[in-house]
Amino acid sequence: MPTFTNHFNTKTLDPFTLEKGYEALLYEMQSGNIGYYDLPKSSVALVEEITPLRLEIEKYYDTIAVVGIGGSSLGIKAIDRLLRPKTPNAKKIVYFENSDPVSILHEMNRIDKTRTLFIIISKSGGTVETLSIFKRLIITFDLVLDHSQQILIISDEGSILSQFADEYHLRRFVIPANVGGRFSVLSSVGIVPLTLAGFDTLSVLHGAQDFLERFLARKEEHVIQKASYYVTHSARMPMNVLFAYSDMFEEFGKWVVQLWGESLGKRNRCGERVGLTPISLIGSVDQHSFLQLIIEGPLNKTVTFMHIKHSDVELLIPKLSLKYLEKSDFVNGISFNHLINAQCQATMQSVLQSGASVDEIEWDKLDEASIGEMILYYELLTSLSGALLEINTYDQPGVELGKQILAGYFQK
Amino acid sequence: MPTFTNHFNTKTLDPFTLEKGYEALLYEMQSGNIGYYDLPKSSVALVEEITPLRLEIEKYYDTIAVVGIGGSSLGIKAIDRLLRPKTPNAKKIVYFENSDPVSILHEMNRIDKTRTLFIIISKSGGTVETLSIFKRLIITFDLVLDHSQQILIISDEGSILSQFADEYHLRRFVIPANVGGRFSVLSSVGIVPLTLAGFDTLSVLHGAQDFLERFLARKEEHVIQKASYYVTHSARMPMNVLFAYSDMFEEFGKWVVQLWGESLGKRNRCGERVGLTPISLIGSVDQHSFLQLIIEGPLNKTVTFMHIKHSDVELLIPKLSLKYLEKSDFVNGISFNHLINAQCQATMQSVLQSGASVDEIEWDKLDEASIGEMILYYELLTSLSGALLEINTYDQPGVELGKQILAGYFQK
Repeated sequence: MPTFTNHFNTKTLDPFTLEKGYEALLYEMQSGNIGYYDLPKSSVALVEEITPLRLEIEKYYDTIAVVGIGGSSLGIKAIDRLLRPKTPNAKKIVYFENSDPVSILHEMNRIDKTRTLFIIISKSGGTVETLSIFKRLIITFDLVLDHSQQILIISDEGSILSQFADEYHLRRFVIPANVGGRFSVLSSVGIVPLTLAGFDTLSVLHGAQDFLERFLARKEEHVIQKASYYVTHSARMPMNVLFAYSDMFEEFGKWVVQLWGESLGKRNRCGERVGLTPISLIGSVDQHSFLQLIIEGPLNKTVTFMHIKHSDVELLIPKLSLKYLEKSDFVNGISFNHLINAQCQATMQSVLQSGASVDEIEWDKLDEASIGEMILYYELLTSLSGALLEINTYDQPGVELGKQILAGYFQK
Repeated sequence: MPTFTNHFNTKTLDPFTLEKGYEALLYEMQSGNIGYYDLPKSSVALVEEITPLRLEIEKYYDTIAVVGIGGSSLGIKAIDRLLRPKTPNAKKIVYFENSDPVSILHEMNRIDKTRTLFIIISKSGGTVETLSIFKRLIITFDLVLDHSQQILIISDEGSILSQFADEYHLRRFVIPANVGGRFSVLSSVGIVPLTLAGFDTLSVLHGAQDFLERFLARKEEHVIQKASYYVTHSARMPMNVLFAYSDMFEEFGKWVVQLWGESLGKRNRCGERVGLTPISLIGSVDQHSFLQLIIEGPLNKTVTFMHIKHSDVELLIPKLSLKYLEKSDFVNGISFNHLINAQCQATMQSVLQSGASVDEIEWDKLDEASIGEMILYYELLTSLSGALLEINTYDQPGVELGKQILAGYFQK
């Protein structure tokens, strides 16, 4: 279970504000308008439902091609990357997300058509990148659509993509209408491809449910405190850095960036622009890149340090002393995992001394349950912050104009 | 040659400020204190010097392992990623940068010891990640040090790593003392590994020199305008977004983030904290992630849209109309490159309409010379901004404390 420590001053937080966030969440949850709270429980049945399918496709496919973008790929990639080292036998997942022709061609070259299951994911069903790439795959790989066992559709009930799936008798899964794209990783969006690939998604769901229950039992008050602190200090600190110490967090960081940025960058009820800017960093690499700005630049950022206490990989720095390089011998004989944890601690201390607002999330180890907990943690933190900002956390009206302008370019 | 268009209002910029930045750069250049200005010319000799070596190692090695972090890896990775699609025969480069044990193990497993050239890069010579990984590689691959042809060292003259190299009679290259790590990509740091891998580094250098000469001939005034605009608006817009439309820009974006963040996040002469925060995004992917925050969140960001007009890859969206999915037919028959460029334009228009400060960099095509130009462009932009902020652009005093705390943990 991860350990959460807020190093910033929580004593001055207004008790009324803290309760306001919690109450708003309870209301959302009980109203049924917002559905992600139900997923850790409801998706258990989904895992059970697709287990026969998993065993069946086991025989035919060794690769899963996920065609989706944004909320339809980021969460899958995050869990895939985090669990891959401890699930080496999971099927290869190839992602088609960007309209970049170089990437599409590169990924197509990694696919053996006869051994690949194609999963097309779009909540609205009309995403231009996803549909264009899907068409490209149909032609390039000469896919037969009708009654195909090789194509699987995940979309909203009644969407154009779902109607298409039914027309061609394709297997399809539904995204609950009250679950937004960026909150959908524990719905069919993430659970279907990850389960079929062979990841232990049940444990992810259990971890998520555990965290939710602890939160509702008021045993995870630090989340409420952090949301309250971030929102009430947003004018002075408009940026929130996640400094995560492992390359495995690269995609998780991108998932957090979407969740946080797209949920909270909004006009509030008075039409004012509000929002907090997420920044994802990887340690120790970004100590050599971004750290200087945090330490000596303007104090306009909060910083969350995330690290994994125990690693499954035991790799030692050899007890080797090289002439003239004795200066580095102080870490001889320790593990790289010890080093990266010590670097995280040392950097956190130096950032604290610089005067920045810091909190720390320590994973005991990288396992499925912890990932589920962290997903719920970030989703709850986002919902709480949105409630305190008095915005609609779950829509994204700002991205529509660009889509209209794009369509206008091609109007005959 | 890339085309630069500042869409923000440059009319109100103070002519005195514009000249001040330019004068400061001239002074730096002529004083000899700052060396990166000389690299596009001086490194040509380096490419010629190592050509025999390139032909020699051609026979023995098919992989180059680069051991380095921050300024000793980001620039190499950026150019490698951008040029890889058009240089498919370049040798594989494997990067060891992070102290993450999972990554180190993963990369070690990709190496055939007998076919790999190891290049160890550290400007100071004492980087703890680099030296620890180097020791791990020596033990794991049983590398014999003395007179080894398989190990190559790049470091400052007289550094402990250079002394080590001489002790063991290893081939080594020097980083000029007046070239900082994050400005070193066109020095031996980038030129040696990339040339040995088979990339056309001469054309990169020529592009860089061309841009420098045009800048000095006052034919690239937009750089000065942009630096001036960014600095004078830094209180209201403390964040600068690079929104680059191709997955190939992922590492280039990280290189810009280091260059910009570490150079400009400083205390100025009065001890005040100044700095601008860089944010790297990839289009079209991040239209589905970060765009909402730009459009409706606080107007606290400038946004640079970068895209590539012509692609070497001609990949079409098929003229395929699928029942119920006709909505997406408006892009049928065009190329994915056309789509991604149109997405960039449409998004830029929507961001402009939101009131944000926007500029645009259009690459005619992705080639070596354009990469060289863009490197110089960003380096000059950084130097100009630092001069206007009245800081030392080239040091990084803020990162020292963390290193001392780390060493303290292991003091016996």
